[in-house]
Amino acid sequence: MVRYIGVENVTRLVRAIGVEPYLVGLSRYIEDDFRRWPRFDKVPRIASHSPDGVIELMPTSDGTLYGFKYVNGHPANTLAGLQTVTGFGVLADVATGYPQLLAEMTVTTALRTAATSALAARYLARPEARTMALIGLGSQAEFQALGFHAINGIDRLRVFDIDEAATAKFLANMDGRDLVIEVARSAEAAVEGADIITTVTADKRRATILSDNMVGAGVHINAVGGDCPGKTELQREILMRADIFVELPEQTRVEGEIQQLAPDHPVTELWRVIAGEVPGRRSREQITLFDSVGFAIEDFAALRHLRDLADETGFYQDIDLIPAPRDPRNLFGLISATDHALAPLEA
Amino acid sequence: MVRYIGVENVTRLVRAIGVEPYLVGLSRYIEDDFRRWPRFDKVPRIASHSPDGVIELMPTSDGTLYGFKYVNGHPANTLAGLQTVTGFGVLADVATGYPQLLAEMTVTTALRTAATSALAARYLARPEARTMALIGLGSQAEFQALGFHAINGIDRLRVFDIDEAATAKFLANMDGRDLVIEVARSAEAAVEGADIITTVTADKRRATILSDNMVGAGVHINAVGGDCPGKTELQREILMRADIFVELPEQTRVEGEIQQLAPDHPVTELWRVIAGEVPGRRSREQITLFDSVGFAIEDFAALRHLRDLADETGFYQDIDLIPAPRDPRNLFGLISATDHALAPLEA
Repeated sequence: MVRYIGVENVTRLVRAIGVEPYLVGLSRYIEDDFRRWPRFDKVPRIASHSPDGVIELMPTSDGTLYGFKYVNGHPANTLAGLQTVTGFGVLADVATGYPQLLAEMTVTTALRTAATSALAARYLARPEARTMALIGLGSQAEFQALGFHAINGIDRLRVFDIDEAATAKFLANMDGRDLVIEVARSAEAAVEGADIITTVTADKRRATILSDNMVGAGVHINAVGGDCPGKTELQREILMRADIFVELPEQTRVEGEIQQLAPDHPVTELWRVIAGEVPGRRSREQITLFDSVGFAIEDFAALRHLRDLADETGFYQDIDLIPAPRDPRNLFGLISATDHALAPLEA
Repeated sequence: MVRYIGVENVTRLVRAIGVEPYLVGLSRYIEDDFRRWPRFDKVPRIASHSPDGVIELMPTSDGTLYGFKYVNGHPANTLAGLQTVTGFGVLADVATGYPQLLAEMTVTTALRTAATSALAARYLARPEARTMALIGLGSQAEFQALGFHAINGIDRLRVFDIDEAATAKFLANMDGRDLVIEVARSAEAAVEGADIITTVTADKRRATILSDNMVGAGVHINAVGGDCPGKTELQREILMRADIFVELPEQTRVEGEIQQLAPDHPVTELWRVIAGEVPGRRSREQITLFDSVGFAIEDFAALRHLRDLADETGFYQDIDLIPAPRDPRNLFGLISATDHALAPLEA
């Protein structure tokens, strides 16, 4: 049997543990896998593009476990009441090739993106950072807010979205949390005095959410929304002033903010910072930028984390995704038993 | 909800319909998709190799539906009582990116491989062919036998396997079928007088199951077992005498029998024959060879077929693989409901 963790069990699990403790635990799994980055198979995601969006497969392996995620990105979905991004993932045993775990990864991707952002900021933001500007209050916003609260000690948010309904949804979801939230009148107003700027807007085009004059010395920018070809959020001049940290450079150069830059513009791989090979933030004045697009190893870590928690809590089901014939060469035996009768079985 | 068709429902479905009618229906779906081959996205499978085997993802799309299969190949698995090949597949809506169907594809791959072989032989074997040699009586053997019986009118089999237990299993599974089966003492003896030769052995190495002197004029060879780098079944001289038909040439040149040939050796794409663009068999004396390795479009067709049959019969379950939040931008709402309590829910 293959272990299945659907939406209901993931949400029960997260509720049982609490979102913030969940994000802290998840960020540790991601940190562990970033530390052993060279051991993973790394290929850019395999994309199938269509006029409405993209469907991607993101595989990786550490030599013992194999994992992949299916994920789509369809910006117009929200007009039809559907989500822009959905996903699911699988872990399999490299030694036998047998799948072990199938899990929803819509909620899980939102959690892992936030955990990765907060992890990166632990190495790149000034340690005393307490105020974050959060621009874009869509489906990722609450996860980012709570990730930075739990992992980085952010206790003050300055938020902005062009859509008042999104702002209202965000405030309702954050009600009762230990965070001071100020709603700004504009993106410019939101970033005033912020130690960290998170941009996580959903527009599928080259937008200028942050312009050069809005970014002061010492800030850490967590650029989450610019994550596919043609979709960016930052004015190019900001990138020229910042030290840029990325997941997999060959993927980020196509999908991230740095698609605006020359293909040889220097960037630092985040894993090298986390593994202690190179410094993260080197000065108080430096502008650091995490150009987040999401990489398969983060999903791999998220699936490991989910699997271990499901083991502990029992929040999973077993499904018959793979047959278990008594004689492995007698696959036909599975269907031959009552075949001769040709009578329909009861449903 | 996503429709899930596990092993139990696939086997119930096949038993309810009957294996042979199922294979006939499946071959029609494959034929339809081969006819519209140019409309599909075609990429060679994405493989993750390890010392023990390979895990592959096989995606494709016709612009309306997207499909992929996960499949492994681990020859030593049988020693541990496990299957060499397991798999599952997904269909998704290209317009929204939402997955629609998740299905087991271990049994289904065995069925689609046989249906594709029999379909190819309809275009490539002599129409009066009635006798097939079947060499290799592992997990694929019964499916091949019944596919050729149902689709090509084969009513006499001459079978051989080096393993007597495999032969006994095959005979037991074929008991009561409308097929005359002769067990041969050797591969050489099996092919005597056969109109069609099917090789479907499991050895992961360059083997010589068929040598040049065993293949007479007019025969159609259905070479199924040679399906990955370093694994072939036919002596090279046979390939030089045969007209060779393949699925996706760039994939077959790496994985199929033709890995033994120069990279520019002429081959014909099977879909062109099925679409009526080029002739299949052109003479009674010609040796035709279908160098089968399996391609994503066959799995896509098999998933469409399975989806339609599940619709008709109700042999499926719904699973919560993708969330359905009332407000698509309020993903967080799914987990926030009782989060503040931090109390574990009942399992």
